Amino acid sequence: MPDPTSVAARDQASILAANRQFYEAFASGDVSAMEGLWVPDGPVACIHPGWPPLTDRTAILRSWREIMMAGPPPVRAEEAEIQMQGPGVALVLCREVIGSVTLAASNLFRQTPSGWKLAHHQASPLAPRTPTEAPKGRILH
Amino acid sequence: MPDPTSVAARDQASILAANRQFYEAFASGDVSAMEGLWVPDGPVACIHPGWPPLTDRTAILRSWREIMMAGPPPVRAEEAEIQMQGPGVALVLCREVIGSVTLAASNLFRQTPSGWKLAHHQASPLAPRTPTEAPKGRILH
Repeated sequence: MPDPTSVAARDQASILAANRQFYEAFASGDVSAMEGLWVPDGPVACIHPGWPPLTDRTAILRSWREIMMAGPPPVRAEEAEIQMQGPGVALVLCREVIGSVTLAASNLFRQTPSGWKLAHHQASPLAPRTPTEAPKGRILH
Repeated sequence: MPDPTSVAARDQASILAANRQFYEAFASGDVSAMEGLWVPDGPVACIHPGWPPLTDRTAILRSWREIMMAGPPPVRAEEAEIQMQGPGVALVLCREVIGSVTLAASNLFRQTPSGWKLAHHQASPLAPRTPTEAPKGRILH
């Protein structure tokens, strides 16, 4: 039986492309592309920085429209790493760089008949630090 | 073919129990229980608030040991919601309450021969807000 957590090279390229397209849609404020990147049906979730979880597809897409209409940020993703979590389920961990702020992001993709689609996104800002320091500020955990 | 995103009642109870045990281990500083709650092998990730992603099991368990040795917080989880993301892969969204601070958390579980185990955790503080306000402070997205 194939290991469900291994990543075929073809899948890996498709997943990284979907992750890249997500940030391209975000940075360019492309509402239509953003809508097409999320799974069309089934469970879906999104936790923007500071926001409570959104678990309704309509509410999630509305939040992205509103964020992008307010002026999409010059965001770019770095250091993307794929983890296969099961058959047709991939977690991409990456850093989102927006100006001087860096966030840690988890993007969960599901394989659908129309390709790998976002099923869950969470991003949270990294605490300011120097290379030799632990994160500053109150450590919640 | 059964819908891979549907949740059998038995699985649902097991997944919620695993999520509860995670917060019980955290709140009681039970290092041994915490270690037993994470998947024993395969991909694993953890993003503590303000931290960069950790993707090495040894580093993740060390981080929990250090956090709990510094004094485990009186954390409790509320409003847990399960989303099946695929066969044997479940996402639990919940709120972590630590004193006056509330965080939004994503806990991804994989089904293993020894039960549902944590494969990924991310938590990020909610922005302070009143019921009628949008989140305060700079909205990164």
